[in-house]
Amino acid sequence: MKNENNVKVIPLGGLGEIGKNITAFEYKNEIIVIDCGISFPDEEMYGVDLVIPDITYLLNNSDRVKGIFITHGHEDHIGSLPYILKQLNVPVYGTRLTLGIVENKLKEHNILSDCELNKVEAGDIIELENLKVEFIRNTHSIADSCSIAIHTPIGVILHTGDFKIDYTPIDGLVMDLERISNLGRNGVLLLMADSTNVERPGHTIPERSIGETLTRIFSNAKGRVIVATFASNIHRMQQIVNASVKYGRKIAFSGRSMENISEVAMDLGYLHIPEGKTISVDEIQSYPNEQVTIITTGSQGEPMSALARIAFSTHRKLKIEPKDLYIISASPIPGNGKLVSKVINQLFKRGADVIYEALEEVHVSGHAYQEELKLIHTLVHPKYFMPVHGEYRHLRHHSELAQKLGMEEKNIFNLETGQVLELSDKEAMITGRVHTGSVYVDGFGVGDVGNIVLRDRKHLAQDGMLTIVATIEKESYSIIAGPDIITRGFVYAKESEALIKEAKDIVRKELEDCLENKVIEWYVLKANMKKSMEKYLYEKTKRRPIILPIIMEI
Amino acid sequence: MKNENNVKVIPLGGLGEIGKNITAFEYKNEIIVIDCGISFPDEEMYGVDLVIPDITYLLNNSDRVKGIFITHGHEDHIGSLPYILKQLNVPVYGTRLTLGIVENKLKEHNILSDCELNKVEAGDIIELENLKVEFIRNTHSIADSCSIAIHTPIGVILHTGDFKIDYTPIDGLVMDLERISNLGRNGVLLLMADSTNVERPGHTIPERSIGETLTRIFSNAKGRVIVATFASNIHRMQQIVNASVKYGRKIAFSGRSMENISEVAMDLGYLHIPEGKTISVDEIQSYPNEQVTIITTGSQGEPMSALARIAFSTHRKLKIEPKDLYIISASPIPGNGKLVSKVINQLFKRGADVIYEALEEVHVSGHAYQEELKLIHTLVHPKYFMPVHGEYRHLRHHSELAQKLGMEEKNIFNLETGQVLELSDKEAMITGRVHTGSVYVDGFGVGDVGNIVLRDRKHLAQDGMLTIVATIEKESYSIIAGPDIITRGFVYAKESEALIKEAKDIVRKELEDCLENKVIEWYVLKANMKKSMEKYLYEKTKRRPIILPIIMEI
Repeated sequence: MKNENNVKVIPLGGLGEIGKNITAFEYKNEIIVIDCGISFPDEEMYGVDLVIPDITYLLNNSDRVKGIFITHGHEDHIGSLPYILKQLNVPVYGTRLTLGIVENKLKEHNILSDCELNKVEAGDIIELENLKVEFIRNTHSIADSCSIAIHTPIGVILHTGDFKIDYTPIDGLVMDLERISNLGRNGVLLLMADSTNVERPGHTIPERSIGETLTRIFSNAKGRVIVATFASNIHRMQQIVNASVKYGRKIAFSGRSMENISEVAMDLGYLHIPEGKTISVDEIQSYPNEQVTIITTGSQGEPMSALARIAFSTHRKLKIEPKDLYIISASPIPGNGKLVSKVINQLFKRGADVIYEALEEVHVSGHAYQEELKLIHTLVHPKYFMPVHGEYRHLRHHSELAQKLGMEEKNIFNLETGQVLELSDKEAMITGRVHTGSVYVDGFGVGDVGNIVLRDRKHLAQDGMLTIVATIEKESYSIIAGPDIITRGFVYAKESEALIKEAKDIVRKELEDCLENKVIEWYVLKANMKKSMEKYLYEKTKRRPIILPIIMEI
Repeated sequence: MKNENNVKVIPLGGLGEIGKNITAFEYKNEIIVIDCGISFPDEEMYGVDLVIPDITYLLNNSDRVKGIFITHGHEDHIGSLPYILKQLNVPVYGTRLTLGIVENKLKEHNILSDCELNKVEAGDIIELENLKVEFIRNTHSIADSCSIAIHTPIGVILHTGDFKIDYTPIDGLVMDLERISNLGRNGVLLLMADSTNVERPGHTIPERSIGETLTRIFSNAKGRVIVATFASNIHRMQQIVNASVKYGRKIAFSGRSMENISEVAMDLGYLHIPEGKTISVDEIQSYPNEQVTIITTGSQGEPMSALARIAFSTHRKLKIEPKDLYIISASPIPGNGKLVSKVINQLFKRGADVIYEALEEVHVSGHAYQEELKLIHTLVHPKYFMPVHGEYRHLRHHSELAQKLGMEEKNIFNLETGQVLELSDKEAMITGRVHTGSVYVDGFGVGDVGNIVLRDRKHLAQDGMLTIVATIEKESYSIIAGPDIITRGFVYAKESEALIKEAKDIVRKELEDCLENKVIEWYVLKANMKKSMEKYLYEKTKRRPIILPIIMEI
């Protein structure tokens, strides 16, 4: 179906995985990109700080890339921008709050002045040569979030971005269902929709009801109230502020991202706090406990977060005090449950009171449940559908949901990252695959930690390592120093004295045997030493530490 | 309150943690122990296979320990027996199924013939010199489970063990509420009760309703049905068998623990499968797919389990086939959610259908919810209460639940592992603490991996390691070989050539400076090399690998 009038949709990340959302849309000489997120390392990615998408494909087509369009300011949609813009400096488009958060990031990476950030408002349409990109207000767990419609010469592609349908949002700005309905009436070629919560029946509860629960909880609080939530959830923040003001409390923000984002949100008018109601963490001591609210990071139990440091008494400024009430206003992201539990247990142990999801409705998801998804499908009734945002199981279930609503399976495309969906006004099919992948960020290094390094780290983590070192004199075929053995992460020194002594004897014997036979090639010596050591240690301990034989020659 | 007639209750594990349940009860010259479990390593315990309790206290009082009484056959209640019995060989008491599972374990450790296992039936009372130990039938997610009442001269202690209240259990053996009520009427000194699900309102749904769901699902299955569940959940197994037989399917068991436990359960008459209905995994190919059920391990997504191996095509005998239906009949234990998700996603990707908790009611917890706990408290109305089995937050909430039912806070004891609760007929208080702890099992090693080793493994996992080795001649104050640098888990070799070259130069310079100044003490040389290297690497990479300087002298 090759045709220069076709539109190509190429997810470069985010399909069949959580996070790292980035999708390219291509028509003739124009490529636009929606979102540019990171994902967080899974437990196998030892030492990796974060994961960004491999954008080789965009770099190979850099002259055609016209801009990156951001749906909202969450890390899994904006987090890669500082890294990607260093490689591919193209204009970025987003709403005011989204770009406010992006600006902060680019500043930290010292590249803000090199970047072109274009502020848009919901409703705006950016006109490129052939493509038009329309921002459509939606509702999500961050303010100023948008869906995006791409108007192409062969039809409209509607990408919901992350969304839920909240009819009573805190800022009063409801999702622009009218515009979406209008697009649907005029015909949408392809719908791409958020699949995160497709397994959940019913409808999300409105954000406002969390506010009601919080207000009730605040009304009974006798000491300080410390609420941990996502720093980006400005609406949640606003509701905590409202409950605090109602009960005569001052508000302090704690934790770097909480301080950063609350400041951006206040500056830009997304977070409203009456004059004189905010205080700094340093000022908390000047107020009676029952007049203080602290909004903090750490809702995921992150060990270095403000909340965890309070719980484990390592926070420099904040200590647990009598009658403190802690509220975890968030769900643990999969994988974080144990960390969150640790913090909750520790707070209880220290005598504090803690309220969390299992006990009260203090959190609601930002992603549409089944009935919300059905509404969008029904309004849009697209020609083709592609589920996005979610693990494979979610994409699969979203495809089933669409079929229950009457779509034919052949019109649904469940893509993998890197696959190319090509659309004409008559047909759609997967026509190829481009290079994609994950790039690991570790410290200053971007991409210098790969599978070999990670495999070694995993191996080291499991059984530790053992270095054998010996100096030999080539000419005389003799050992002149060593062999010495040094271990880390293997066994306790005191427990292993006999073991290491015997190991040394074995290595020395192996080495002497080789030298006696005039074997002097270091790689043979090393291989033999390693082999005999592995065998011995496994028999004795059932462990396989990394063995590092080093031969020095003089 | 020291008095030789006092009873002491000493949890040696299992309080404020999940697993590793073991509690000592002491009266005069008698000590009895309830349960002897393991816990599984958390993510910080790199390379550790399992965790057993430190029983120093029991070893120091070994002549007084009269026996270990087991409530039921779950790992967190029996798993340490092979290790503990090697140190402290005392009689073990338990019901038939429980001891059947224990026997298997002791056989694997080659110590069965050295151990004394005493089979009891629910209702039996074991009479020791002063203490009587009564087994009382309860219901749980494993058959033949018991609560235990200890009759002491100063009163009765009732330990519920793990339990829920199922009025229609699969084996028809309901919890002996009559006996519990009877004990309560005559006065119970101390109640110790399962806190696992105290945060959940209402009542567990009965196991039988899972059977109804499974039967409905089986009625629609067109190919093989593969059900993953806990090997020890004989009742679940029975229901899967019943549904299979109803729809003309043969049953095969896959996975080592599944094969072991199903065999024990059949032998002992706890699992009933009609003649000719079981087949081996090797025979599956001889039957049409729609006549096959496979009951397998792997409900927690364990990477080496049968289910994961099927999903990732590494199972030697079982492959995914068209129309396969996979059922995950279990909840992910906290921390395992991502692993389970991986397997589910992979099964979907390979075209199979998968049903799990988010979609259908295919699992129910084995631990009492709030209303069940209230029933037990109401029947027993003990003088003192001690919440057990659960993290700290659960113990705390169980204590609150007891207070809502009318107990006074002063009569509730929320202990930590190692604390001693001393009871007389007049009062109860925490009077001391004994030595307790965790012992790590890694391969053959029991206790040879401790905090230093784990700290090193964590460090290695984060940033890898870098060995610097040099040979020096003492007399001439000169370097005669090296310095060489070898890294593992740090950076890609090809990316780091320049880095490592510069690092070598720095080390050589450092070493030469020292030698020039006649500094020859190896610990000074090593410290200096390490320090300069750390500084250099952190500046360049923002990483801190373990640095291992080795100086050989000739």
